[in-house]
Amino acid sequence: VNDVFDPAATYRIKPPRWPAQPPSSVAQVALPSPYLLFLGDASDRLFIKTAAGLVDWAPDRCLGEWGLPSCAVSVGLPRMSPVQAAGQGARAIVIGAAPIGGALTAEWKRALLEAMDAGLHAVSGLHSRLNADPDLVAAAARNGVKLIDVREPPAGLQIGTGRRRSGKRLLTVGTDCALGKKYTALAISSALQDAGLDADFRASGQTGIMIAGSGMPIDAVVADFIAGAAEALSPAAAAGHWDVIEGQGSLFHPGYAGVSLGLLHGSQPDAMVLCHDPSRQTISDYPEHPIPDLGTAIDLHQRCARVTNPAARVIGISLNTSHLEADAAAELVAATGREIGLPVIDPVRGIGMAALIGELS
Amino acid sequence: VNDVFDPAATYRIKPPRWPAQPPSSVAQVALPSPYLLFLGDASDRLFIKTAAGLVDWAPDRCLGEWGLPSCAVSVGLPRMSPVQAAGQGARAIVIGAAPIGGALTAEWKRALLEAMDAGLHAVSGLHSRLNADPDLVAAAARNGVKLIDVREPPAGLQIGTGRRRSGKRLLTVGTDCALGKKYTALAISSALQDAGLDADFRASGQTGIMIAGSGMPIDAVVADFIAGAAEALSPAAAAGHWDVIEGQGSLFHPGYAGVSLGLLHGSQPDAMVLCHDPSRQTISDYPEHPIPDLGTAIDLHQRCARVTNPAARVIGISLNTSHLEADAAAELVAATGREIGLPVIDPVRGIGMAALIGELS
Repeated sequence: VNDVFDPAATYRIKPPRWPAQPPSSVAQVALPSPYLLFLGDASDRLFIKTAAGLVDWAPDRCLGEWGLPSCAVSVGLPRMSPVQAAGQGARAIVIGAAPIGGALTAEWKRALLEAMDAGLHAVSGLHSRLNADPDLVAAAARNGVKLIDVREPPAGLQIGTGRRRSGKRLLTVGTDCALGKKYTALAISSALQDAGLDADFRASGQTGIMIAGSGMPIDAVVADFIAGAAEALSPAAAAGHWDVIEGQGSLFHPGYAGVSLGLLHGSQPDAMVLCHDPSRQTISDYPEHPIPDLGTAIDLHQRCARVTNPAARVIGISLNTSHLEADAAAELVAATGREIGLPVIDPVRGIGMAALIGELS
Repeated sequence: VNDVFDPAATYRIKPPRWPAQPPSSVAQVALPSPYLLFLGDASDRLFIKTAAGLVDWAPDRCLGEWGLPSCAVSVGLPRMSPVQAAGQGARAIVIGAAPIGGALTAEWKRALLEAMDAGLHAVSGLHSRLNADPDLVAAAARNGVKLIDVREPPAGLQIGTGRRRSGKRLLTVGTDCALGKKYTALAISSALQDAGLDADFRASGQTGIMIAGSGMPIDAVVADFIAGAAEALSPAAAAGHWDVIEGQGSLFHPGYAGVSLGLLHGSQPDAMVLCHDPSRQTISDYPEHPIPDLGTAIDLHQRCARVTNPAARVIGISLNTSHLEADAAAELVAATGREIGLPVIDPVRGIGMAALIGELS
């Protein structure tokens, strides 16, 4: 549902410290690290957005990079073979590039087999599943390693209980898809930690899960379990602890709103930050469906969220100003704040975060 | 999510005429009929609610019944073996009883194998899947028949497009689960047909699918596809045609609201009928979550539905008065109508339908 919106800008914010791996009794996807990032035969940085995002947001998890002989790009890590990476402590090879056509080629598959023979688990966020390939399944069994499809939900999900749990939660929500909900959640996690608060980023999409090392591919779970999966993603925590949960889709999205509402109910957020791109008039790829105004979106999110948390409120707005020059962006942030009466941030440009964090302290 | 709420009362309403089987290019579950209803080893009518509902609502699809020697109940159909049923034109055996413990016993499985050897397809709404049993899978292949798990979504589902399609649609929605959304939709379908209008019931749960012979197990689809599955359930139709769509869950339900919102968006209803049980104070099995008042529920449904159909409105209320005597029920229906200013029906007691149908003509 979501996507990174401006990887080139991610250097601006310090990556947050990551949550500990969930215990195996918790139904979440959990990834072994550090990673060897596989770049395939990519000829352009456009094809290695996943690897670049991992280096930006999870440098501690990334030990090295590896590609086919024809690979023409780098994410700036030491180049090493799977055997060398395993010798230096790598635990998994992560597919960090998008294959042409979306499916593994024979050459990519041979590379994965080589990595598994070196003792590495294999991690993929591709639509086509590693676990659907008999050769990879056989190699995993032979080597005692796992094939982890990050888009595959964990076993053991339950119907949402609606029961309140300890700890505090912030969910990023949006007036559309793909406008910065993951980036905003990462930036707020980092800022909360900088302010000395106890906070974890909780990932609900495949790129976020690879960054955080654990999480829930919420749009891939069976419909009945959406809210329950969201409950599993942010389990009970210490009273003062903040989970900052990556949102998905939008309540106003004709295709994905069911995912968004289940995630909202299961997250039971105390605070929501509404992500918005003022340059969009209609939902991405849905030219007949208008983007709601901020007041309408705030109101609907609060009404819906109060089904599971009567104190839920939208505490701020996160603007995606990628269409504007710096001066115009700063002006729009200020004008939006005056209009809505809430803190407004532009996380990519580092504007306004202190006031938002002040609401959470 | 949903359930029949009072099978004993279903005789009051004439079953609607059923939709034609969808073409195989449409992603829906489609069942071959007529059915031989399998009653297993049921000792009490409590265990054969599915078969009894089929006889009440889809008598034309039900050719006969069959049970194990220990079966002590009947739904009043001719008793016949699978070979006899096949000889009289039956095309499928339908599991119409609930096995103790929920899974097939060896004896039930032998009965299904006998039916498949007689050339019948096998249809099940149980949680445990027929298609997960290697013996049944082998028998199906050997006999050239299908194992149809009604809780298993069809292949080929897509993300919802949000695009308007021709024809008119009514969706039953609710302030809670399991309070009469299927019954209300069946009753409205029947009344529309009686009024000479072109109308089809569209089933979104397993019992409804068996009744209608086709449909969509909406709570079992992958979260990303809920709205798209709802679009497939009620495809484009003639301009004056009504699809009457069985609702699921509730926007106010802490576990299932994501399903309800995706079904709402994909159904693009012109009209919604809000089902409500005035005796409930809290959501079933969620004692901490209050049932909303009718005005709040009408408002939220209209706001959400207008994302995909700006003309959507709640046109009436369907009350479940199973806790009341007849006089008190009639009084409550009248009082609710005065309070809300909309037609109010009690479909089980046959109250108020004419005024509601008047809104749709």
